[in-house]
Order: sequence, then C-alpha cells, then structure tokens
Amino acid sequence: MVEYKTSPLDAVFHALADPTRRAMLRTLCAQPLPVGELAAPFEISLAAVSKHIQVLERAGLIRRTVTGRTHLCELDAAPLHAGMEWIRHYEQFWQQRVDALEALLKTEDLSRSPRKPRRKP
Amino acid sequence: MVEYKTSPLDAVFHALADPTRRAMLRTLCAQPLPVGELAAPFEISLAAVSKHIQVLERAGLIRRTVTGRTHLCELDAAPLHAGMEWIRHYEQFWQQRVDALEALLKTEDLSRSPRKPRRKP
Repeated sequence: MVEYKTSPLDAVFHALADPTRRAMLRTLCAQPLPVGELAAPFEISLAAVSKHIQVLERAGLIRRTVTGRTHLCELDAAPLHAGMEWIRHYEQFWQQRVDALEALLKTEDLSRSPRKPRRKP
Repeated sequence: MVEYKTSPLDAVFHALADPTRRAMLRTLCAQPLPVGELAAPFEISLAAVSKHIQVLERAGLIRRTVTGRTHLCELDAAPLHAGMEWIRHYEQFWQQRVDALEALLKTEDLSRSPRKPRRKP
C-alpha cells in the first residue's frame, strides 16, 4: 500500500493554478508592493485579493511585512525550484515526442525532395 | 484594467497540486496502464480514482484509449513544457538568493580563516 501525504509541492502547484495569483507573482518580480497596489489591476474584491495572497503565503511564494497599516508583499521564488525540478523529470518524455516529430518531418522531406542524379563512378 | 482568463496552465498546475495525481503520472512514466492497475496502489475509492484521472485528462496529461471494457491510460508530458517555461522565468530570483547566500558564507569563511603571514619583499 502506497501512502502519499500532502507536501509543499501541493501548496506551490495549487498557488500557481490561478491566473490572478500568477499575475501577482509576475508583478512582484519588479519590486515589493503594498497589498493595495498589488490588488489595483484586478477587478475583484479586497476579500478575494486577500484570499489569493494567503494562498501565495501558504506556498511560501510571498512574504508579508506589516509596518503600521501597510502590508508589504515581497516575492520569494525559492519554493518554485522544487516545482521546476519535479516537472524537469518529464522533459525526456515531451522531448521524445518532439524528436519523433522531427524525425517524421525529415523522412517526409526526404521522400518529397527530387532525387539528385547519381554521379558516374 | 487587466483581465486574466483561465488558460491551459491553470489545468496543468491544478492537476499537479495533488500527490495522488503526481504519483499516477510517475507510474505512467514506465508504461501505459489500464485504470484498474493504475488505481491499485491507492487506498481510495474507484470513484475518487476516476475523478483524479478526469482532472489529468482535462489537463491533457493523460490520454485514455477505450478498447472494449479496458480503459488504457497513457502519459502525455507535452503540457508540462509550458508549466516548466512559466516557472523557469523565476529561476533568476531564487538563484539570486543562492548567490547571495554563497557570497555571505564566503565572506564569513574569509574573516574566520587564520591570516597567512606576509611574505617579505
């Protein structure tokens, strides 16, 4: 019997499964931002923004620093490393398909190209 | 106003956010399997297994071929490529942290190492 417990990867991939959260991470690449400025481009309630930020925090992708009434959000990309390593294992499989497709196209090209005249020995 | 519509990436990352689904993909790396064999190592109901497989199918990560009563599941890793490319953009940010940490450790090592006696000119 195999047991699979939840892992940090669950939280990371769950955080990335939403376009608003991915856009928030993109925005924070440029600089840390207060919650209000981070939320500004999205036409969603502040409650929804807050929920998205909590998901990102649980995944360790955002660090929040509270100074008075300002909540500053900062990107922490480190947990993404494990996500990339997990996916990287499958690179060989999609690469195999690309290689097979290339080989097929090459074969078709060869069969369609006009034959060169043979040189006389 | 920025609009973020759902994309194939949502489905891929959502599919990866569960340890059972990740384990199923790992299993299918070796060979295509009928649903029953794919489900065997997990102590969950067949209904739950079926739901997980549907999530993987929606993300394009599993292709199902039905022959009579046998549903054969096959891995399709291609959609993971986009996921890896999305994450790769952030590599520079976690790399910056690793570089900063290495620089810090190097500085500490230097300050702790005994001074070499100066050569006489």
